[in-house]
Amino acid sequence: MPQPFEYRHRVRYRECDPMGRAYHTHCLDWFEAARTEALRDLGIAYRELEEDGLIMPVVDVSVRYHRAVRYDDEIVVRTWFEDLPPRTRVGIAYEVHDGRGTAPAVTGRVTLCFVDARRNRPITAPDRIVKAFAGIEPALRTTSP
Amino acid sequence: MPQPFEYRHRVRYRECDPMGRAYHTHCLDWFEAARTEALRDLGIAYRELEEDGLIMPVVDVSVRYHRAVRYDDEIVVRTWFEDLPPRTRVGIAYEVHDGRGTAPAVTGRVTLCFVDARRNRPITAPDRIVKAFAGIEPALRTTSP
Amino acid sequence: MPQPFEYRHRVRYRECDPMGRAYHTHCLDWFEAARTEALRDLGIAYRELEEDGLIMPVVDVSVRYHRAVRYDDEIVVRTWFEDLPPRTRVGIAYEVHDGRGTAPAVTGRVTLCFVDARRNRPITAPDRIVKAFAGIEPALRTTSP
Amino acid sequence: MPQPFEYRHRVRYRECDPMGRAYHTHCLDWFEAARTEALRDLGIAYRELEEDGLIMPVVDVSVRYHRAVRYDDEIVVRTWFEDLPPRTRVGIAYEVHDGRGTAPAVTGRVTLCFVDARRNRPITAPDRIVKAFAGIEPALRTTSP
Repeated sequence: MPQPFEYRHRVRYRECDPMGRAYHTHCLDWFEAARTEALRDLGIAYRELEEDGLIMPVVDVSVRYHRAVRYDDEIVVRTWFEDLPPRTRVGIAYEVHDGRGTAPAVTGRVTLCFVDARRNRPITAPDRIVKAFAGIEPALRTTSP
Repeated sequence: MPQPFEYRHRVRYRECDPMGRAYHTHCLDWFEAARTEALRDLGIAYRELEEDGLIMPVVDVSVRYHRAVRYDDEIVVRTWFEDLPPRTRVGIAYEVHDGRGTAPAVTGRVTLCFVDARRNRPITAPDRIVKAFAGIEPALRTTSP
Repeated sequence: MPQPFEYRHRVRYRECDPMGRAYHTHCLDWFEAARTEALRDLGIAYRELEEDGLIMPVVDVSVRYHRAVRYDDEIVVRTWFEDLPPRTRVGIAYEVHDGRGTAPAVTGRVTLCFVDARRNRPITAPDRIVKAFAGIEPALRTTSP
Repeated sequence: MPQPFEYRHRVRYRECDPMGRAYHTHCLDWFEAARTEALRDLGIAYRELEEDGLIMPVVDVSVRYHRAVRYDDEIVVRTWFEDLPPRTRVGIAYEVHDGRGTAPAVTGRVTLCFVDARRNRPITAPDRIVKAFAGIEPALRTTSP
């Protein structure tokens, strides 16, 4: 997978607040959709991981809102995997571009960990994930917004 | 439990849309909170039902929006159990009052069914639920908005 | 526009509940996205209507859940405009198809009304909307799920 | 107002994901409710600020999830105002306590800025806000989770 992965989304009415802008929490929804599709692009369906007893809870998030994202704007969420496996965690960086300027409207970072659902304990990334991430171009592994 | 049960909620900013009113889907969130608390008032914690292998998926919903519900309004959701157990379903009626008039701002109805989670099959309401509902005052059982 | 209009969506993790199924309220989110895109397909951008002082609040909704919609399923929402303008309201019918059977997993109907935002009063559909809807194939106008 | 301010919330079914835990984004919803009520406790109704042409968009957020928050748990969100006015921004720190241990399950921080809605420009906190915050006990102003 060439990084960054790009996920497209149209800002919905239900996502917008009385200021006429996307309410800030929805960026995290877009990040989830973006990383799910980026993983799928690497050959990893999160649904199958979970069926195999692996879950990936969110450990921390940070988001900076540089300017308002507007209703009905078509946004592009760019996604970079950082801190690649083998590890017990994976950090993912995001930029939200709204086509209203060259700088991103929003930037953020989310860390997830790998957890054995049955024992409810952190584990290192399983082999299939390590192999999938190995396909990410090395030069881009260090790219970060 | 004297019917209707009353659940109070303050309309949140994240629930409001660019028209400055509560986005229509959030009424269903309020209905869920209201019926959960109404059940608790009858001595039924939904969490325990689910731990015992019973789930109650929603079968159908209908909602009528008579006027806009506004940001920061303190609303009261009145809840009536209809179609009481023993049955495989329970219908619940709701009125949303916003203190801006005597008529409800929103009225609705949600039907849930009783499902054995392990076999994924509809069942009649278990004894503990039948008994809990038996405590609802008969005169009010037929009350409906 | 040939009816029905089709809108595609991948069911997201944030939309799913402890039963592992899409929480029932999110169907209404999908309906909103579907009707917005169906309107856009008719040449109507809802954002522009609102900028022109027209808003379209939801008057009523009804939804029937025939079976659970699952996490990560790619669904198709089919949309039919009923009760076409000129009127003060427009009814829209929906079917959610999840590819797990020929029958829809969910069916629903939402009525919206046309409101002059400045005067906060219902109005008949403006000319541009009547003209746009005139493009819908007559044979299909009566189609309904 | 003695800091921290405490806001109570029951974790709702719609907030929980297939892991049976509160989906991570909803912490930010609880933070919004908590700061709105903390402001109200200081004599500031956010609705009135907005009616007066002041809006307070979120500038940045950061959240750390120390352990899962469970369905139906009654949580307490503790809120501290930091970086008190007069300034163009206000930082607010949060702890989510779930009664399952003495350490918070979640900690976070949200920065909001003061914006003149008509000119869409950042401003310093208006007098009424500066005065309201002056009532916060000085010893606690430096308290932070």
